[in-house]
Amino acid sequence: MTESIFTTNGLTLSIVLALVGLGVAVVLIRKILASSAGNERMGQIAGAVQEGANAYLSRQTRAVSIIAALMVVAVYVARGGASAIGFIIGAACSLAAGYIGMTIAVRANVRTAQAASVSSHSALKVAFNGGAVTGLLVVALGLLSVAGFYGVMVKLHGTKEAIDALVGLALGSSLISVFARLGGGIYTKAADVGADLVGKNEQNLPEDDPRNPATIADNVGDNVGDCAGMAADVFETYAVSLIGAVLVGFLTVKENATAALAYPFVLCALSLIASILGIGYVNFIKQKSATAALIGGVGVAGVISAILFKVATSSMFPAEVAGKLFNCALVGVVLTFLVVWITNYFTSTHHAPVRRIAKASETGHATNIIAGISVGHHATLMPVLLIAASIWGCYEWAGLYGIAVAVVSMLSMSGIIIALDAFGPITDNAGGIAAMSGLPAGVRQITDELDAVGNTMKAVTKGYAIASAGLAAMVLFGSYVEDLKAYLPGVTMAFDLNNPKVIIGMFIGGLLPFLFTAFCMDAVGNAAGAVVRNVRDQITKFPGILTGKDTPNYKECVDIVTKAALGQMTVPALLPLVFVIGTAFLGKEALGGVLIGTIVTGLFVGIAMTSAGGAWDNAKKYVEEGNHGGKGSFAHQAAVTGDTVGDPYKDTAGPAVNPMIKVVNILAILVIPIMVKLKFFF
Amino acid sequence: MTESIFTTNGLTLSIVLALVGLGVAVVLIRKILASSAGNERMGQIAGAVQEGANAYLSRQTRAVSIIAALMVVAVYVARGGASAIGFIIGAACSLAAGYIGMTIAVRANVRTAQAASVSSHSALKVAFNGGAVTGLLVVALGLLSVAGFYGVMVKLHGTKEAIDALVGLALGSSLISVFARLGGGIYTKAADVGADLVGKNEQNLPEDDPRNPATIADNVGDNVGDCAGMAADVFETYAVSLIGAVLVGFLTVKENATAALAYPFVLCALSLIASILGIGYVNFIKQKSATAALIGGVGVAGVISAILFKVATSSMFPAEVAGKLFNCALVGVVLTFLVVWITNYFTSTHHAPVRRIAKASETGHATNIIAGISVGHHATLMPVLLIAASIWGCYEWAGLYGIAVAVVSMLSMSGIIIALDAFGPITDNAGGIAAMSGLPAGVRQITDELDAVGNTMKAVTKGYAIASAGLAAMVLFGSYVEDLKAYLPGVTMAFDLNNPKVIIGMFIGGLLPFLFTAFCMDAVGNAAGAVVRNVRDQITKFPGILTGKDTPNYKECVDIVTKAALGQMTVPALLPLVFVIGTAFLGKEALGGVLIGTIVTGLFVGIAMTSAGGAWDNAKKYVEEGNHGGKGSFAHQAAVTGDTVGDPYKDTAGPAVNPMIKVVNILAILVIPIMVKLKFFF
Repeated sequence: MTESIFTTNGLTLSIVLALVGLGVAVVLIRKILASSAGNERMGQIAGAVQEGANAYLSRQTRAVSIIAALMVVAVYVARGGASAIGFIIGAACSLAAGYIGMTIAVRANVRTAQAASVSSHSALKVAFNGGAVTGLLVVALGLLSVAGFYGVMVKLHGTKEAIDALVGLALGSSLISVFARLGGGIYTKAADVGADLVGKNEQNLPEDDPRNPATIADNVGDNVGDCAGMAADVFETYAVSLIGAVLVGFLTVKENATAALAYPFVLCALSLIASILGIGYVNFIKQKSATAALIGGVGVAGVISAILFKVATSSMFPAEVAGKLFNCALVGVVLTFLVVWITNYFTSTHHAPVRRIAKASETGHATNIIAGISVGHHATLMPVLLIAASIWGCYEWAGLYGIAVAVVSMLSMSGIIIALDAFGPITDNAGGIAAMSGLPAGVRQITDELDAVGNTMKAVTKGYAIASAGLAAMVLFGSYVEDLKAYLPGVTMAFDLNNPKVIIGMFIGGLLPFLFTAFCMDAVGNAAGAVVRNVRDQITKFPGILTGKDTPNYKECVDIVTKAALGQMTVPALLPLVFVIGTAFLGKEALGGVLIGTIVTGLFVGIAMTSAGGAWDNAKKYVEEGNHGGKGSFAHQAAVTGDTVGDPYKDTAGPAVNPMIKVVNILAILVIPIMVKLKFFF
Repeated sequence: MTESIFTTNGLTLSIVLALVGLGVAVVLIRKILASSAGNERMGQIAGAVQEGANAYLSRQTRAVSIIAALMVVAVYVARGGASAIGFIIGAACSLAAGYIGMTIAVRANVRTAQAASVSSHSALKVAFNGGAVTGLLVVALGLLSVAGFYGVMVKLHGTKEAIDALVGLALGSSLISVFARLGGGIYTKAADVGADLVGKNEQNLPEDDPRNPATIADNVGDNVGDCAGMAADVFETYAVSLIGAVLVGFLTVKENATAALAYPFVLCALSLIASILGIGYVNFIKQKSATAALIGGVGVAGVISAILFKVATSSMFPAEVAGKLFNCALVGVVLTFLVVWITNYFTSTHHAPVRRIAKASETGHATNIIAGISVGHHATLMPVLLIAASIWGCYEWAGLYGIAVAVVSMLSMSGIIIALDAFGPITDNAGGIAAMSGLPAGVRQITDELDAVGNTMKAVTKGYAIASAGLAAMVLFGSYVEDLKAYLPGVTMAFDLNNPKVIIGMFIGGLLPFLFTAFCMDAVGNAAGAVVRNVRDQITKFPGILTGKDTPNYKECVDIVTKAALGQMTVPALLPLVFVIGTAFLGKEALGGVLIGTIVTGLFVGIAMTSAGGAWDNAKKYVEEGNHGGKGSFAHQAAVTGDTVGDPYKDTAGPAVNPMIKVVNILAILVIPIMVKLKFFF
């Protein structure tokens, strides 16, 4: 067969479509900025949130830059100049994705509040488009940076060197995303928990009350955590999966090798079109509910992706191979839908798990907590079985490369999925702005309804990210092994469970998610304590704050959370580094064990924490809707406890497990040449 | 060198010393029964607890017997008559250990209460001896059954067949212990949580108030859960470790083969003497504190074990081998001490973790919970690193057999360790009897002090059991592989992490502890709900109960918990069966992955849950001692919430993970011949 245009020009196609994606993002940005930003009071509040968010991100960027600079040197020494440049590109794009996404979010929030005074559908559109910008930016930047850098490197140094350099790009994006997820996650929950503890519990102020000095910090947190942190995280997941697939394609596929190298890029490029069409669907086709509109958008993107994948696959590969590879790509799309559906089941107020937690709140705080933890554990069953089945099917069809194709296909849908996720913090903020600027109650009701939808959508994205990590584990481990083979030609590679070093590695690796999440939870507690102390101080010094006579010093509080979050993120962020480098000295088998051990426990810890957190949050919402006694009842108090416990679960510790797993895997690949040189790997 | 007497007569020696152990247990039983059982009122209450405990155990025995009978048939079909007989012996001894231990405990409790009116030291002695009976019974029965059955089988059918038949014994004891741990664990916590929810929260009754209809059930629970369940669990751990070591010795050791087969028996036999001397130390050497006396007893047993091990090892093996094997045996003893020390650090009121939880209670329920979960996660670090180091060291010294020796050496100390553990529920019960029969406050104070020590000791045993499971994992996995080799001669065995079937197996195996603990927590919740409903019913029908005019129907409540616990234990207990048999159809590699996956996540889940539970319990005690506001304060309410969440953590779900891991491993070994016959293993 003659070579398909997808094979010969796949890279060019993906660069062109990435630019189209960026163009659409620009159109959306203009559309959002063109809509009304409300009255002056709203503008002041939104301005304070913007200022706080910018202040945090620029300080975070400075803090991370120091570590990143040290890492660039390390990468240069270990892997050479091309990898070091890749590292810088990966880190910069990861930062940029978060930064631009957040910049739009802090402008979309106030416009959503304003649109909510017109209609629910207008508010949905503004908020969704704000999220869609982030979604498009993440995938377009991801595709552009990987494809562009790879294309240039191939021209300059050839394929082998280009692929080596991609590992640097992967590490850059991973490292930034761990910091962004952690710093943002600690920030958002410290402000949230701190504001609640002192505002709701001690002073009996309602949520988002302008008299609470921590209220602006709380709203800033939604942006730096759920927008910027999440965007950096998914950018990393997207880029690393694509790079992993290219790596595995290059190292393991011998027939149709050129097509196999182009295929992951083509999948991403085509899916980007599908995401744009899905975004169009939400904008132009009016649905009866927000959930229907959003899920409809994902459905449109999924079906179009599948059709385009079929066309491209058939044109790129001989019939028999094409059939099998298309199956793998389809697995990625179907898995996305199933994970979304399962997470929705476990975290939405319409199904048994959340209602069980709400019911358990009737007998008190403890039974609420026990029910929530149990729901989290139960939530691991189906995703893990599906991941196992996917691994099996794809491997049977096309080996390790088949799994890589499924991962890329799954993550190629990130654009539309992120749009759903970023929608949540925007509506949350819109509600805050509406409350603080005294808009009519009807506005707040619309934003609250959208926020409840946003809660479930946020849980869904986290489930999606961590499930993709489970599937990607085999690919990344495979990359590690194949890269080892390249550095140690002729050495047999065996990672047998009979080898005690492998088992030791797995124990050490398995430890990492437990220790990491423990530090994350401690960090939130410590940072929240700092918030509580500051708010108490302010109220003691200026008692007029509570009567509305004095204006609280919002900025001081923002400043304190910023410092605390950045201070607290260092230890957990450096854990993977310590574990990987420490175990590397025990040999390549132990390090291989670490990779698998981390994913085995990390997958469960991640799913359990994000699901339980989402379920607790919505159980509280369900009680607040008037069930089991409604607001102010004993059950409500217990449900609030569950929600607070769920905060660091679902927004700090749980989601940070995903980038942590990736950092471990990529660091392992990165240390190979050093350890071979030092004769610890032989 | 001429063969050592330990080598030629190791089996006989162990049978003789096991009989000596039983003899000492009988002496202790007579000593306990000879002490005063107090006044008539105390006798009535103790009688009610005895009756309830017996009723539960006999009903549990009947329920389990049906499943056991089916399993005997399955074992007979799969493995032949000898294994089926082994299964019956293992099951019967596991039941007997729990049964007799509990029978003594329910007699020692009232005598401890009586002795507490004399002095703290007398109370300590009675309670400790009650626990020591269980400890001696467990190890003596374990050693006697394994050594006796093995000896008879060797005579009748030869070594190979005898070792095969031991797998049946291991399965019998494991199966019973899962049911005993689960049923007892669900019973004790359902009664405890149910009694607290309705008694303390709704009716404001103090702990152990005779007006609470669930109070006898609560006291019965301590005996069927913490005594009978724990004894069956440790019996299983002991027997399975010994059998695993014999299996590995037979299959892998070629030089000094006879000595290697006798060695595990000799270690157990010698350590039994050491345990008896440790028990003597606690009885005859008066210490300034209960903790000092108990830890002193363990110290004496440990040092004497080490000395005896040195003598025996040197006499049995050539010098160079002896040195290495002694190192392995020493690792077991040292690991026991370190795990005891670490668990004590994380769960005692004297150290930072418990105090951190107590401090976090000041800011409410949620921060108490977050701190507790974080402490649980942190508590996994050191045990796991120590286990990893032990595996490495022992494997370097003596291969898989070296690890097996360390495990046997560690578990040979079970006698004295169980004595510490069973001490807890006896003093807990003694306190209950003292309160219910209106003994002077000074008595209750003594039993309360002993109970606080008992709490930490209970946590320590659980840490010990689950840590030993981590170490035993390699041995049991090795047994699986070696047995596979025996059934599939000439087939290369590879369980490489590159093989997706291994990874799939690990995901499925890793799922098991999460799903299992979720069902355990649900079971406690459901059974506690039944208790709450019954107590409410009783109070509604006879309001005179609350004023002391009507006597509550304790028996009805005991009956209801019994039924609920037995009903709720079936699903989690059958999970390992479903998972092992289900995955076996995917092939031997996937099943191998399941074994390791289960231990990797199970180790962390088990340690985290038991440590967090113990820490929450003692954080409450620390607050009650007058810190952070003391009893009745806001912090105290939060600490009570943590304690209640910790109940199913530390007494139901967490400790049941240990026998569950074993059942998975032994079932895997058991299905080998069937799967080979069915051509799923090839």
